Amino acid sequence: MSADLARLSFNQITADHLDLDQVIEACAGAGIGWIAPWRHKLGPGACEQIRAAGLRASSLCRGGFFPAPSAAERRDRDADNRAAVDEAAAVGTDLLVLVCGPAPDGDLGAARNQVLEGIETLAPYATEHGVRLGIEPLHPMMIGERSVVVTLAQALDLAERFDAAAVGVVVDAYHVWWDPELERQLARAGERVFAYHVSDWLVPTPDLLAGRGMMGDGVIDLPRLRGHVDATGYEGPIEVEVINPANAELSAAELMATVRRSFVESS
Amino acid sequence: MSADLARLSFNQITADHLDLDQVIEACAGAGIGWIAPWRHKLGPGACEQIRAAGLRASSLCRGGFFPAPSAAERRDRDADNRAAVDEAAAVGTDLLVLVCGPAPDGDLGAARNQVLEGIETLAPYATEHGVRLGIEPLHPMMIGERSVVVTLAQALDLAERFDAAAVGVVVDAYHVWWDPELERQLARAGERVFAYHVSDWLVPTPDLLAGRGMMGDGVIDLPRLRGHVDATGYEGPIEVEVINPANAELSAAELMATVRRSFVESS
Repeated sequence: MSADLARLSFNQITADHLDLDQVIEACAGAGIGWIAPWRHKLGPGACEQIRAAGLRASSLCRGGFFPAPSAAERRDRDADNRAAVDEAAAVGTDLLVLVCGPAPDGDLGAARNQVLEGIETLAPYATEHGVRLGIEPLHPMMIGERSVVVTLAQALDLAERFDAAAVGVVVDAYHVWWDPELERQLARAGERVFAYHVSDWLVPTPDLLAGRGMMGDGVIDLPRLRGHVDATGYEGPIEVEVINPANAELSAAELMATVRRSFVESS
Repeated sequence: MSADLARLSFNQITADHLDLDQVIEACAGAGIGWIAPWRHKLGPGACEQIRAAGLRASSLCRGGFFPAPSAAERRDRDADNRAAVDEAAAVGTDLLVLVCGPAPDGDLGAARNQVLEGIETLAPYATEHGVRLGIEPLHPMMIGERSVVVTLAQALDLAERFDAAAVGVVVDAYHVWWDPELERQLARAGERVFAYHVSDWLVPTPDLLAGRGMMGDGVIDLPRLRGHVDATGYEGPIEVEVINPANAELSAAELMATVRRSFVESS
């Protein structure tokens, strides 16, 4: 399984209670070679810290949140997304994850149009700076808080309006495993798969936004899903993104050991 | 709005803290002409009670839960579903709502096949007893506990294998509003729409299974959705199904007044 471990990337939100330098140290100590930092944890020198520890950044989380009530606010979002592109490039990754945002007023159609317009505005800037955009469909239960893009089909409909080298999708097992269309859409996705994220679906699920389980602790058939992702040709890093405050009860070293074991045994 | 009020049906789970006779009395007192009883609340004489109060039953909730680990258990489910058909007929409705059940072992494909087999087994018996089967797709967040059928497209794929008079779908705003395919699938559904349920999606949603809001308290664009349902030609009862333990804090009369007002103003 050593080849697999070489693809393991630790998504920083899995240890949201730690600072970036603590996560870097714990990853390096556990022999994890990739990290996916979040913008709210980045300080000056983050890129140097990551490199100095021998790590690489698999993606930056996150841009997006395109819909907003006014044109002025949407321009602010556009500016913030350009800053996110800059930060992705600065931290040494060529992938910015897009969480597209909820509807400000319950009008899903209008919000979905604003997502498309936001990506159209951002894509040329991202390409110019060597950063690809990965549209991440989120689970439909997060539509009120996080994203009006809720299926892989919908994310691909958006991505396919752009060059395949510039805009693709982020496939997160937790967000897409329920979808009866999943296998067909993965077959369609091909080279548009820019990233693959794993965690597990607990039964019962303790929280809509932060109730994820470690791989193997829930009911997602991750080996089967992995087979379909492999069949797309995706060979990049696999991010472990387990958003759950219970992770803070483990020491950093215990958490990394758990992530490694779950990744090897169950994903 | 009097024509609309004539279509209002009170789904009993909205007042799960009350017994059937209390709900019947409160409906009759509020001028609500329809009720959707649940099997776990039915006692002997339920049909007579409903009729005596001048009410009609719009559906019976619920049959389904087809997938099970063993053939013997699946036969038990089949027998229970035939009993549900009998109870629907006895309570004076021609519609049994099917909540199809979760996967017993994480194998979604196998569970989805068992759902189809279960409906194939049940449909002839239901038709013989004058009861239609309404497949209700549930929100994908309920896939672990309630249903592997999670989109309207999937429910229609199942229903279309049967006679259009025998098997259709139940469209519940809460379960389907997030779906980018919703308008297209409603246009496809036509006469397969056997029922329409309303409630609202609260932000934040307090609970995955019992966190629904009254119409107007959340973010679903119900008038718009209602337009698409109307366009299918559906003219039957509209069930108010607001699963939320906070409803128990209201008196039965207050709850019915709230339901009436929300229904008229916001759905």
